Amino acid sequence: MVRVAIGPENTAVSGESSLGVVANVPPSDLLLPEQEAAQGPDALSRLVALVGDDLRACNQTIIDRMNSQVALIPQLAAHLVAAGGKRLRPLLTLSSARMCGYEGDRHIVLAACVEFIHTATLLHDDVVDESLLRRGLASANAVFGNKASVLVGDFLFARAFHLLVTDGSLPVLGILSQASATMAEGEVLQLATQNDLSTDEARYLEVVSGKTASLFAAACEVGAVVAGRSATEAAALSSFGGNLGMAFQMVDDALDYAADQAVLGKTVGDDFREGKITLPVLVAYAAGSEADRVFWRRTIEDSEQSEADLDHALALIERTGAIRATIDKAAVFADTAKAALAIFPPSDWRSVLEDVADFTVSRVR
Amino acid sequence: MVRVAIGPENTAVSGESSLGVVANVPPSDLLLPEQEAAQGPDALSRLVALVGDDLRACNQTIIDRMNSQVALIPQLAAHLVAAGGKRLRPLLTLSSARMCGYEGDRHIVLAACVEFIHTATLLHDDVVDESLLRRGLASANAVFGNKASVLVGDFLFARAFHLLVTDGSLPVLGILSQASATMAEGEVLQLATQNDLSTDEARYLEVVSGKTASLFAAACEVGAVVAGRSATEAAALSSFGGNLGMAFQMVDDALDYAADQAVLGKTVGDDFREGKITLPVLVAYAAGSEADRVFWRRTIEDSEQSEADLDHALALIERTGAIRATIDKAAVFADTAKAALAIFPPSDWRSVLEDVADFTVSRVR
Repeated sequence: MVRVAIGPENTAVSGESSLGVVANVPPSDLLLPEQEAAQGPDALSRLVALVGDDLRACNQTIIDRMNSQVALIPQLAAHLVAAGGKRLRPLLTLSSARMCGYEGDRHIVLAACVEFIHTATLLHDDVVDESLLRRGLASANAVFGNKASVLVGDFLFARAFHLLVTDGSLPVLGILSQASATMAEGEVLQLATQNDLSTDEARYLEVVSGKTASLFAAACEVGAVVAGRSATEAAALSSFGGNLGMAFQMVDDALDYAADQAVLGKTVGDDFREGKITLPVLVAYAAGSEADRVFWRRTIEDSEQSEADLDHALALIERTGAIRATIDKAAVFADTAKAALAIFPPSDWRSVLEDVADFTVSRVR
Repeated sequence: MVRVAIGPENTAVSGESSLGVVANVPPSDLLLPEQEAAQGPDALSRLVALVGDDLRACNQTIIDRMNSQVALIPQLAAHLVAAGGKRLRPLLTLSSARMCGYEGDRHIVLAACVEFIHTATLLHDDVVDESLLRRGLASANAVFGNKASVLVGDFLFARAFHLLVTDGSLPVLGILSQASATMAEGEVLQLATQNDLSTDEARYLEVVSGKTASLFAAACEVGAVVAGRSATEAAALSSFGGNLGMAFQMVDDALDYAADQAVLGKTVGDDFREGKITLPVLVAYAAGSEADRVFWRRTIEDSEQSEADLDHALALIERTGAIRATIDKAAVFADTAKAALAIFPPSDWRSVLEDVADFTVSRVR
């Protein structure tokens, strides 16, 4: 299923992360704002600064092109699109194009399309299943409802493809339509593995590759394509993006059991409550005692959870070193991402993209 | 919002339907299978016969291209795609291309893409809102769940665009991506009018134009484009399809308050239970007594319905002639559809498409 070129054949590396300094710090020790200030701006902030006006133009395009006479569409889309978010995927498109020496402005609309596709999947991710609803888990789409989330997502998706048609590049349309199909496959595969502790690591990586890495890969690849670079360079950027996406999602899965909500504004325990099978759970389950496994089977497989269960889950994750194991594996993908950039000559662009790969992993330290 | 060229400026015609013979028969008097046999094959059957091998090739393409290594995708898609359905939209693409003298085979894959897009919207239509769920209305997607319906729909939509990219026509991609965006707008507009009896007929027609007519129009237009015909001919086929789609949806809305379930395999009362604002309700509300309006406000606006309410709604619809009024207006669109074909020379293709327009309305008689 997976089209993205993923790095190391054997991802089951032991504790030998090249980012040892990161992995040696307890996972719950998060970067506080004052620390961040003391260390200077992070890689993402430097990427934003380097991209500069391109990002402002992209944001304007996003706001202009998500408009519709049907008022509910901009209203709902604004919640996700206009309100901000880190714009990581469009930043990758913009910077990839610039690193490839592109000097036009088509990359602006391509970056906006990438963000539309991402936002559509976010909206569709908000759709809750009947079973979750019965357990009182309607949250993200509580204001507008399932149906509105689906339809506005559809609108953004269709609008993205219409914009791409206007841009007029069949290769770009091919890359992004293929990535969209692969993302949907990854999401369906995730659904199929939900509540299933017999899922193995390879299957988990397949899910991550489909649902997250494929769009990261496409976002970078179109930067090379719009710049008219060779297939080799396009493939290198696809590999950079795909491996970065793998690292990004794995760290995200770790944060769901580790983040300090006050610092990162992220909710801990969403994946646990939904019975999502992620690497931290697989590691903790594999390394756990028989009593631990009974706990995981009850809470994840049978979806029987009480108030105190999340704390116990976090304790088991901590005890088995599952966060560190997840981050170590993410770091291998981040390293592979950086290595893929080696065919490009040194530049500020290449340097900041390499730093972004490191930063993706060092978010948890 | 609406791009489809819709026929008569003033659709508020009185009882003067050109299909008087149809409209004079009580709406509940449906065509029984034995009657159908006595009258010879209906227009749709004749269209299927004329299209012949093209439809078989299209069905094979649909089955081949909805495949995925993620087993749930073909499983769920098969429920809607492979199992059949009348394939009305792909039939329109196939026959439009042939009427335009097309002799290649690209129209096969275009027709399959049109059906994929339609199926994606069907799957997304299955998504139920929390409010409906609370009233016990989870039905269509009960087997697989909201989330699977959304994701498999996304897959089919993305796959359709990927197939279109492989076909390689930017004009065709433009027509179908624009239609997809317009469909989503129409569906969102429908959501916004739900439970709102102050919706007027113009707004209702706008919903129908977006959610249904736009894809009918696109399905026909791409037939002219693939055949390399002029913009005038493409616009004529777009108008035919758009007006046919209007008639089709309006009749569908009438059937929701009129169909004999045993004959048509259609459930009566779905729209009523969901508080959907359709023309039969608007007519019955406008023509009703104050007591009637109290009834409609309670059941449609406040969503307070008891077991007996559907029967009472059907009685009010019958008493106010709302079915006939709806069908009469649908007939005007069907006539406009037929008129749009006048620029094409007479042929078996043109003739059967004209008959399909009539048949669309005569389903209720």
